Amino acid sequence: MTDSIFYKRSSKRAYLDREIPKDTLNEILEKTRWSPSCSNNQPWRFVLVTERNQREQFMTALPQGNQWAAKAPLLVAVCAREADDFNREDDPVKYYQFDCGMAVMSMLLAATEEGLMGHPMAGYDADKLHAILQIPEDYHLVCILSLGYSGESAELSKQWREYDQSPRNRKSLSEIASFERFSFSD
Amino acid sequence: MTDSIFYKRSSKRAYLDREIPKDTLNEILEKTRWSPSCSNNQPWRFVLVTERNQREQFMTALPQGNQWAAKAPLLVAVCAREADDFNREDDPVKYYQFDCGMAVMSMLLAATEEGLMGHPMAGYDADKLHAILQIPEDYHLVCILSLGYSGESAELSKQWREYDQSPRNRKSLSEIASFERFSFSD
Repeated sequence: MTDSIFYKRSSKRAYLDREIPKDTLNEILEKTRWSPSCSNNQPWRFVLVTERNQREQFMTALPQGNQWAAKAPLLVAVCAREADDFNREDDPVKYYQFDCGMAVMSMLLAATEEGLMGHPMAGYDADKLHAILQIPEDYHLVCILSLGYSGESAELSKQWREYDQSPRNRKSLSEIASFERFSFSD
Repeated sequence: MTDSIFYKRSSKRAYLDREIPKDTLNEILEKTRWSPSCSNNQPWRFVLVTERNQREQFMTALPQGNQWAAKAPLLVAVCAREADDFNREDDPVKYYQFDCGMAVMSMLLAATEEGLMGHPMAGYDADKLHAILQIPEDYHLVCILSLGYSGESAELSKQWREYDQSPRNRKSLSEIASFERFSFSD
């Protein structure tokens, strides 16, 4: 279990100053590409930012708490639009966003397989990123992530180092899975 | 690539009449449990239906086009509520649904690793499933899936056999990934 990509995948904050080889990135994208989606709509669009100037612009849309991402060689914006959903607009279930979640998980696990570390982030200035990345209005910015080779947490500033070195935690199985009927205390 | 779980994972329709061993299911759930989520909220709740009577009830909420799922030894309802979202209710981005997508992808890939086949489905009668599975009103039914060992497509009825045997297709990389800026023709 602890050897599996499912457990090894983790959202840390320290990155090495090391480019992602083109073949490696291609392998990750290729694996991501085969993700399932509702009616095979494949609503996901990935904007991959690698150029230094453009990454610096990208970083201006991130809050102070995510500035560690500046060291990542790749920043990704995940975009999708409601028009690519199987469900009607008044349905509370948004498959185009759920599907992006599936594709991003593929990307994170495929990255882990290649020895890389991806970190999904929220809390960004979506309007600013729309402008910087020239994302059309009808596409929502569903998620952003940083990707690169893991560095040493010891090199992070105190707050981030503490986050990175604190024990990981998850709900127990009985808190997330019940048999035959919905049966959760919370 | 074709040997990888990312490519081997596929939404087919034929299942063997074979139970999923408890240890195997546990391994899949354990891997799913380590999925990331916004603020580590872990909004996913899985209702796992294995008992024959309860599966038969479950199947009554599925459209005719998904009746092949009756042979699967496990049906899963993925539930989550807006209250567990990091974003505010008026935000068009619903992380609780995106996060469920990440967890479901973990589940599908972990199942593939164990030689199982999972098939996410939409188009169900959500109200009926809420009643059958006793899901509280504030939890949305984000997705359902079938899980089991792959059977022979040849044993399916004609329509489903044709689906299962038709070539798989996905958009090309250039249709889903662009560099530095959003640049897609569609």
